[in-house]
Amino acid sequence: MARNNPKAVVIFSGGLDSTTVLYHAINQGYAIHALTFDYGQKHKIEIDHAREIISLNRNIIHTIIQLNTKLFLSSALTGHGTIPKNRQNINEYNIPVTYVPARNLIFLSIAVGYAESHNINDIFIGVNSQDYSGYPDCRDDFISSFEKTANLATKSGREGSTINIKTPLSKLDKKDIIIFGKNLGVPYNLTWSCYDPIVDNRGIYHPCMDCDSCILRENGFNNAGITDTIHV
Amino acid sequence: MARNNPKAVVIFSGGLDSTTVLYHAINQGYAIHALTFDYGQKHKIEIDHAREIISLNRNIIHTIIQLNTKLFLSSALTGHGTIPKNRQNINEYNIPVTYVPARNLIFLSIAVGYAESHNINDIFIGVNSQDYSGYPDCRDDFISSFEKTANLATKSGREGSTINIKTPLSKLDKKDIIIFGKNLGVPYNLTWSCYDPIVDNRGIYHPCMDCDSCILRENGFNNAGITDTIHV
Repeated sequence: MARNNPKAVVIFSGGLDSTTVLYHAINQGYAIHALTFDYGQKHKIEIDHAREIISLNRNIIHTIIQLNTKLFLSSALTGHGTIPKNRQNINEYNIPVTYVPARNLIFLSIAVGYAESHNINDIFIGVNSQDYSGYPDCRDDFISSFEKTANLATKSGREGSTINIKTPLSKLDKKDIIIFGKNLGVPYNLTWSCYDPIVDNRGIYHPCMDCDSCILRENGFNNAGITDTIHV
Repeated sequence: MARNNPKAVVIFSGGLDSTTVLYHAINQGYAIHALTFDYGQKHKIEIDHAREIISLNRNIIHTIIQLNTKLFLSSALTGHGTIPKNRQNINEYNIPVTYVPARNLIFLSIAVGYAESHNINDIFIGVNSQDYSGYPDCRDDFISSFEKTANLATKSGREGSTINIKTPLSKLDKKDIIIFGKNLGVPYNLTWSCYDPIVDNRGIYHPCMDCDSCILRENGFNNAGITDTIHV
């Protein structure tokens, strides 16, 4: 990698979407600073997957950020309530109980602080049209309002070195994301999606296959005509 | 305090401004959830002062939030560079080296996550016209843009239960803040302002009296005609 490649922050969970974004940013020639958040998610196993994916790529600077889990008291995703199973209406325009209060607002804000500290202008996040239907902090109007706010919040933004929030998946559904990522060489077998993993008696994690995230993933692979090797 | 008082989050450092805001919110009848951030500030002594002030007030729920100090690499306030002393031009409209990248963006975002988790609508922050001159994330245009973004980011905001960012000091300078706070009974002797404290050989902290924050505080008390008993 050339020394003068532009740098980018990638918000990276180890999931299907953010891993696709990571590989897209690598493909675009960025020097990558990946940020992974530990916020008390039930599916903390995704952080191990994030580490494994990073280990395949040289020169990525990877930081895992611990957040006080008390912040996210009211989400089923952090253990307060039950994760819904076998939902028929995943794509309806309503906000599910797995919504984590202000999660992307917090992740993006921390990414902005990190970016400004490292003279980075571009921040990538894997929000997409499938999330968009449910989570308010994945929608285009939030992202564009956040970008404006971030530039008012920062010295760099005020002085003309604009912070850009890049959402390369924003118009794609799961099927399109998988096809896009396959062409970039994304190791989908290493990505983790399940909200509510099952641990077997050997301590190995398996996706539940019934939560919204598992269902969206399975439908995405089926519609793309690609086998999801995570299950093998 | 009545059980049904409205709740508020107060971003509370233990400094002069945020303690004034805390007492204002108490005076308004709010049930208070105070958030104090440990972000690697050189003047971490302010957190002890925050605890002491909280201990004078019943029924306040106080949470200290640890943030990864690596996030704030580039600020003199977190030890990367020297804190300026004896500056003549504190009130000029430029951004000092004690600026911490995206600090209020991050603090407010976390406050929004906390507020939504606890069904709270009102968030208080002590930004004021004196900070305004230097720090981009203390200016009115940032605050109003942030408020808009926060309501797009959250379920509560999308569903009509608006998040309000309250800045009762926004039009006040240090003198006015001190006069305002004196009437509310703010224990200014317990508040901490200095960016670069001196520790004596008994382990006791003293304000340096030369940093921007000490100078603004001293001028504020002088202009208000009130003795600052922290120095006694």
